[in-house]
Amino acid sequence: MIRKLLIANRGEIATRIIRACKELGIKTVAIYSEADAKSIYVKKADESYLIPGDPIQAYLNYFRIVDIAKATKCDAIHPGYGFLSENPDFARYCQKQGIILVGPKPEHIALFGDKMASKKAMKKLGVPVLPGSDGPISDLNEAKKIAKDIGYPVIIKAAYGGGGRGMRIVREEKDFEDAFKSAYGEAKKFFGKGDVFIEKYIENPRHIEVQIMADKYGNVIHLGERDCSIQRRHQKVVEIAPSPNLDSDLRREILRTSVKAMFKIGYENVGTIEYIVDENNNFYFIEMNTRIQVEHTVTEMITGVDIVQRMIEIAEGEKLGFLQEDITTRGYAIEFRINAEDPTKNFAPSVGKITSYYSPGGPGVRIDGAVYKDYVIPPYYDSMIAKLVVWALTWDQVVNRAQRALDEFIVRGVPTNLPLLRAIVRDKDFREGKFTTKYLDEKLPTFKILAEEKNLEDLAVAISAALAAYHKL
Amino acid sequence: MIRKLLIANRGEIATRIIRACKELGIKTVAIYSEADAKSIYVKKADESYLIPGDPIQAYLNYFRIVDIAKATKCDAIHPGYGFLSENPDFARYCQKQGIILVGPKPEHIALFGDKMASKKAMKKLGVPVLPGSDGPISDLNEAKKIAKDIGYPVIIKAAYGGGGRGMRIVREEKDFEDAFKSAYGEAKKFFGKGDVFIEKYIENPRHIEVQIMADKYGNVIHLGERDCSIQRRHQKVVEIAPSPNLDSDLRREILRTSVKAMFKIGYENVGTIEYIVDENNNFYFIEMNTRIQVEHTVTEMITGVDIVQRMIEIAEGEKLGFLQEDITTRGYAIEFRINAEDPTKNFAPSVGKITSYYSPGGPGVRIDGAVYKDYVIPPYYDSMIAKLVVWALTWDQVVNRAQRALDEFIVRGVPTNLPLLRAIVRDKDFREGKFTTKYLDEKLPTFKILAEEKNLEDLAVAISAALAAYHKL
Repeated sequence: MIRKLLIANRGEIATRIIRACKELGIKTVAIYSEADAKSIYVKKADESYLIPGDPIQAYLNYFRIVDIAKATKCDAIHPGYGFLSENPDFARYCQKQGIILVGPKPEHIALFGDKMASKKAMKKLGVPVLPGSDGPISDLNEAKKIAKDIGYPVIIKAAYGGGGRGMRIVREEKDFEDAFKSAYGEAKKFFGKGDVFIEKYIENPRHIEVQIMADKYGNVIHLGERDCSIQRRHQKVVEIAPSPNLDSDLRREILRTSVKAMFKIGYENVGTIEYIVDENNNFYFIEMNTRIQVEHTVTEMITGVDIVQRMIEIAEGEKLGFLQEDITTRGYAIEFRINAEDPTKNFAPSVGKITSYYSPGGPGVRIDGAVYKDYVIPPYYDSMIAKLVVWALTWDQVVNRAQRALDEFIVRGVPTNLPLLRAIVRDKDFREGKFTTKYLDEKLPTFKILAEEKNLEDLAVAISAALAAYHKL
Repeated sequence: MIRKLLIANRGEIATRIIRACKELGIKTVAIYSEADAKSIYVKKADESYLIPGDPIQAYLNYFRIVDIAKATKCDAIHPGYGFLSENPDFARYCQKQGIILVGPKPEHIALFGDKMASKKAMKKLGVPVLPGSDGPISDLNEAKKIAKDIGYPVIIKAAYGGGGRGMRIVREEKDFEDAFKSAYGEAKKFFGKGDVFIEKYIENPRHIEVQIMADKYGNVIHLGERDCSIQRRHQKVVEIAPSPNLDSDLRREILRTSVKAMFKIGYENVGTIEYIVDENNNFYFIEMNTRIQVEHTVTEMITGVDIVQRMIEIAEGEKLGFLQEDITTRGYAIEFRINAEDPTKNFAPSVGKITSYYSPGGPGVRIDGAVYKDYVIPPYYDSMIAKLVVWALTWDQVVNRAQRALDEFIVRGVPTNLPLLRAIVRDKDFREGKFTTKYLDEKLPTFKILAEEKNLEDLAVAISAALAAYHKL
């Protein structure tokens, strides 16, 4: 039995875990950096301990964190998301120290932390993966053959690096040689090795992911899927459950495939299998997250299942209290990540004091917040300050509710992405469920609120130019 | 089609109606007294109009309100609860002025506003009513005969007054004569007429009510029942859906009886039929509320139906978009009325400035609030400042969640009933579903938080006595 639990995280997810623990009658211990001393979660926990020094290391130094857990007689640690949540060394260390880590087995954390290995494992388990090379390639002819086998378009990626360096999309065979050579050259220049991977390139993919829940006794269920196609720079911004535009046969196939794979592998606790779905309704595994996700909230809204509570019970050794057929979904839920960032300034993160804060309420509205009036946003962490989750019986109703709730939200003192979110929920394509992972890139320049800001900026530039000219006279 | 709607109310219900309208694409007009100028709803409405003068009359003077509705080109008025919501003259006046009043027909408002007439009508419609005299009685022997027919215990009530004056509970026939005479004398003294009613007295009743929804085309459904037994001075404090302790056959019978009666009478829009249920599972009609109720929220949480939106659509002439069999309930919801009143001082209402305000969030929590930090509570209106609604899949989980959410709630600057609500959700009988309308009266003296306050008061008295004694030395 877990009687006391340390939360190795901060912000809204720390509060989320504290709430789950309180409802389960479990005492909580929070840790915090100096920058987080005035955070809400620090006050909500039963005990809170400052970890001085580097504000990010505070949440990464697991020797110290486990020491605190032991000193405060915690039975368990919940890692939340980010930070230590997918660190297999931390998981193994907890195991050695006799502390329950609320999450899957260390070997599964390790496996799914390795992109290439997890792709191979999932393929073996019968999960479709993107066709591609099995390992690094340096030979042009071999590469060309693989590309031809896969079928164009393909994407060439640096084998030993990332961030877009050494990456080329090739749509026709005639362009392959040039693309390969330049990718190889760039990779060699930046990463020391020119070797590349080749994978099928999907033109307009949707991001569909499956919430998995499994106990220690081989009971594996899914809690439905989420559509997280609306992203900027591979960061999710708006998440939806269930997907409003997924073919029902395809949904069934994705869910069935996911559960089967997790059953075979003996997965434990919760996890999310992420797929991309192409325009022909093929789906491909991209990665698995072996932790609670930011967007678990939308699944909670439609299923009624408290995922964070259940993951704690699973870690304790409890059997799942329900079967797959007990899980029903009702209505639609959308999560909006309220970020302190300026969408008109290329999403530059905002720091500083929140001078006004009012979050919406009423029917179908859930707020998982991390800030308050007079809170000062520190510069060290990610920019999410709250999650707004709305629920309604139908897709149309939930979009209407989202508009209403976003309009009510007030954050002053720092720029936020609220104007962007308001533009999204008023977009016709969004309402019609027409969105792929390219949605935001394509829409961003057309959104009026941003265009207006741009016009204002242009105006300001013109005025200052006129003033400069005037002063020169 | 309703394109613009005036809200003839204030506080949280005004905000609730504005939210419903915004989600339906309907423009809103608010009215407000000088005392309410800084209320949230005044800012949320598209337009807001001050009604100067008496702060209560502002919400009662319907000539003026209808004038504003017409001047601002509103198609409809939503009366909320209280104020004009059950005034048949207002309903008829709106009808005459060509304004849609969001509510039932005027004749039903009138009928159910008359306690005696509605009891007779419901009896005729096959709804069980409390056995009792059909009209006012002044003769002892007649009264005695009726009491005997009904069976003891009975309650004698003044026919032309209320507030407990001329009210006597009689448990045995031998006490009847004395009770009758003293009730008659008291009634005569206070109300000019000594006439009384006699009714069966129910010892430990539960308050069970049924949410009715009906369109203009004879489609009548129920949205389940609520248990509102936890009351103080006949004011509901905690409301629950579904009832955690209602026999399933009895539930079915109450729901079936309610729908049948409303179908027969041709009821329109929403309404609530209130019953008391005795220890032998008999149920008796007590009254019908022909309006939206404060506690509609718990029904929304378990059914997913937005009751306020649907009542606007019904008033527009839309058909119900679902059948009875489409309505399913999931889990349990509890509403807590957060009142600015001091439970340790006989519920004296609090006025003044709220110096600190933090409302809970996270899974299963809904807030319908009316105040904020620095808001000054005016002395003219009822003391409810927010509704906290919690939902969870099971009764045990919802009680745990209620504890967690109530513990998170912070209101400083004015006393509130939060300590009382926290004591209720920690009470064993509450968790076991053991509560009747006598619950609060019986429990209040035993709750620790109140006892502690009492002890502190006693201590303060003792200290000041000691100090006084010291100074005398």
